Amino acid sequence: MTQRLLVIGGDAGGMAAAAVARRRKPDLEIVALEKGRWTSYSACGIPYVVGGDVRSLDQLVARSPQEFRDKLMIDVRTGHEAVALDLDARRAEVRTNDRTYRLGFDLLHLATGGKPRRPPIPGIDGKHVHGVQTLDDAQVLLDEVGSRQIQNVVVVGGGYIGLELAEAFIKRGSKVTVIERGPEVMGRTLDPDMGAVVCTAMRRQGITVYTDEKVVGIESDSVTTEQRTVPADVVLLGLGVEPNTDLAAEAGVVTGLARAIVVDRRQKTSAEGVCAAGDCCESRSLITGQTVYVALGTVANKQGRVAGVNLSGGYATFPGVIGTAITRLCSVEIGRTGVTEAEATEAGFEYVVSKIDSTTRAGYFPGAGPIAVKMLVERRTGRVLGAQVAGFEGTAKRIDVLATAITAGMTAEDVVYLDLSYAPPFSPVWDPVQAAARLALGLLQDRG
Amino acid sequence: MTQRLLVIGGDAGGMAAAAVARRRKPDLEIVALEKGRWTSYSACGIPYVVGGDVRSLDQLVARSPQEFRDKLMIDVRTGHEAVALDLDARRAEVRTNDRTYRLGFDLLHLATGGKPRRPPIPGIDGKHVHGVQTLDDAQVLLDEVGSRQIQNVVVVGGGYIGLELAEAFIKRGSKVTVIERGPEVMGRTLDPDMGAVVCTAMRRQGITVYTDEKVVGIESDSVTTEQRTVPADVVLLGLGVEPNTDLAAEAGVVTGLARAIVVDRRQKTSAEGVCAAGDCCESRSLITGQTVYVALGTVANKQGRVAGVNLSGGYATFPGVIGTAITRLCSVEIGRTGVTEAEATEAGFEYVVSKIDSTTRAGYFPGAGPIAVKMLVERRTGRVLGAQVAGFEGTAKRIDVLATAITAGMTAEDVVYLDLSYAPPFSPVWDPVQAAARLALGLLQDRG
Repeated sequence: MTQRLLVIGGDAGGMAAAAVARRRKPDLEIVALEKGRWTSYSACGIPYVVGGDVRSLDQLVARSPQEFRDKLMIDVRTGHEAVALDLDARRAEVRTNDRTYRLGFDLLHLATGGKPRRPPIPGIDGKHVHGVQTLDDAQVLLDEVGSRQIQNVVVVGGGYIGLELAEAFIKRGSKVTVIERGPEVMGRTLDPDMGAVVCTAMRRQGITVYTDEKVVGIESDSVTTEQRTVPADVVLLGLGVEPNTDLAAEAGVVTGLARAIVVDRRQKTSAEGVCAAGDCCESRSLITGQTVYVALGTVANKQGRVAGVNLSGGYATFPGVIGTAITRLCSVEIGRTGVTEAEATEAGFEYVVSKIDSTTRAGYFPGAGPIAVKMLVERRTGRVLGAQVAGFEGTAKRIDVLATAITAGMTAEDVVYLDLSYAPPFSPVWDPVQAAARLALGLLQDRG
Repeated sequence: MTQRLLVIGGDAGGMAAAAVARRRKPDLEIVALEKGRWTSYSACGIPYVVGGDVRSLDQLVARSPQEFRDKLMIDVRTGHEAVALDLDARRAEVRTNDRTYRLGFDLLHLATGGKPRRPPIPGIDGKHVHGVQTLDDAQVLLDEVGSRQIQNVVVVGGGYIGLELAEAFIKRGSKVTVIERGPEVMGRTLDPDMGAVVCTAMRRQGITVYTDEKVVGIESDSVTTEQRTVPADVVLLGLGVEPNTDLAAEAGVVTGLARAIVVDRRQKTSAEGVCAAGDCCESRSLITGQTVYVALGTVANKQGRVAGVNLSGGYATFPGVIGTAITRLCSVEIGRTGVTEAEATEAGFEYVVSKIDSTTRAGYFPGAGPIAVKMLVERRTGRVLGAQVAGFEGTAKRIDVLATAITAGMTAEDVVYLDLSYAPPFSPVWDPVQAAARLALGLLQDRG
């Protein structure tokens, strides 16, 4: 008899699995439930729609429900939300606008994603307070701001999404204030010295940034911190993401760190025949070996792929993450991979820090700009533990070389002698990442 | 007693060694002989001076003779050429404009570089025929062309330097013809399908390209092939580089492949207390294990560094090369690393070829352009053997990820699951290099 795979969640973690399972097993029946209107979209693109770089939310869609139906024979049902699961009886309870129905399954894949963190601040559930995680969230925001000029925008939290949205609203002509509880923006992403580069660039662009400041209340036209009250017609939450796992947890699927679903290397959950992928589940750090929660589209796609292979009778494993991320904020490109100083210290590593200033192209070549590379290297072994880059055009993607080197367990010396590419329009003869490694070698040799 | 290190050759391979040796051993006496006028310069920048992107040759100098003297206490002597070596007596014969003298040494470092290949074509030694390898060569060319409009330029050979110079002269308003003996330009660098992309771009820019055509004679105002005669006021040689090793060979230092100096992993030559680095010596391919001759500034710098450590009593080894190179030609960025199809076949590898078309940024993001990635993957092991990229802005430096992966011995599957960076201004959610690896996985699984 034909088996049915039920996929819950229509973005990357879900549809990557569905697509791979379909290709590998043409006779599998696949039903995918998505409570919103869209499938397989680039949530990372939302700030660029808000800021006007990209024309509409539709452009962010990689593959529409209709394409999944027509090309991959996947029964995608948008506007259908799974509200309960009975894993023993192998069925889900599904709710739409106007009815509730039961749907049986043999195999289950959970890709319920994440949602913006909303700490218990008075007023945080106000109508003008937006967490932007899905295209549906984005649509709500655009419906509110699309037609009118927003005077004052406050962003609560100085992480990626918050700062990208801050820049988007500056482009729209709003007055924008970022309020960050920590000493520096991007505090969970970058070390303070690298985060300061971003902060300076944001301020130069006209964004007001308050650090070391805690929001204590949100009113209909303002945000109040311990220090001041800032006018706010729209409030954006940039406090990170937490997993959407009520459905799974209530059905008895084991969750762990931050309430994310616990999975093994094959993306299998604690329940037989049930996989999970994406922002709803845990990952493993390849550097510390510890469980981590990472909500990124790249990870969701890879985990989805692994789940899809395993759900269709194959064998694939997801090795883990090392914490790579990049963005561009107010013309500054930044990137990170591996551990920051804070993370390295917490994990018990002893390390040296190498930091260099170089240029993105040969120094004499038109368009060359500054790039700073910071590298953490384990003291005894010389192994690269982490790196951060900040600089001009051509900076961000350089982090990939170090992500690859770290994954391979390379030492700073290995990096120095990598056969990396060079031509004047692209690089100095020692690529900046190698210059940082070379300096690290010197620091290691100075050890007692 | 103070030891004297004599360095012969003032560019990367020589001065990198001198600088490292100085830092490690402050009491070493270091004399560096350079027959030309310049030290430590970017020869790769010459086409950009010719084309007007960079103002003058002086800008290409990373460190002048005076800086070496003042800051590093290195006795740099420009215009001094070593014309003979007596390794037993430990002395060199040195010639300047107006005299010849003997100079003793304890340690010797050979960095005599390379010179443009000049096959025995009638007329190839004409005054208007230029091989451009050193800044002095470039000065001769600029002296000839600087003041006047050159009508017709012929480039013999379709390698990097030849094509870069072809583009430079198109920018200067000349009519430029490239004559290549092989079926495609960049034939030693790229597979024909990738080389064709470059050829198309060159032609679109107005450069005439003749392939499968052999030059049989060079006259004072034309170049003659087996098919035709092309007018030529200036002829440029783009036939590659060969090592400058007469001095070393006559002194009894063993040379090998293509007459390059044979060195061990520490850059030591066959002669006691004598190292070599850069375009005058061999390298080892990390992929095939075979000896190769690679004339690149990046390699020269690394080998020089290794020689400098070893000449100053330390221990360093140069692991080898994998053949990474990039350039930009008529707006097309290209890169390669590892082996091409021809090289893989010659080395006896059985492989699958994965080739994908993607975009440099998220497809919907302004400025996204096409990028093609071709990947060679060993059939049984899944190991990545080589890769080539061609495309829009943001293409070339992506080759570094694969250079790192190949060096680490990664498989296509390893590359698929690398934690590479993603943000819409920089990449699709699956970076193009990972998309190519993913396709390769599919091809491997289809194997019989």
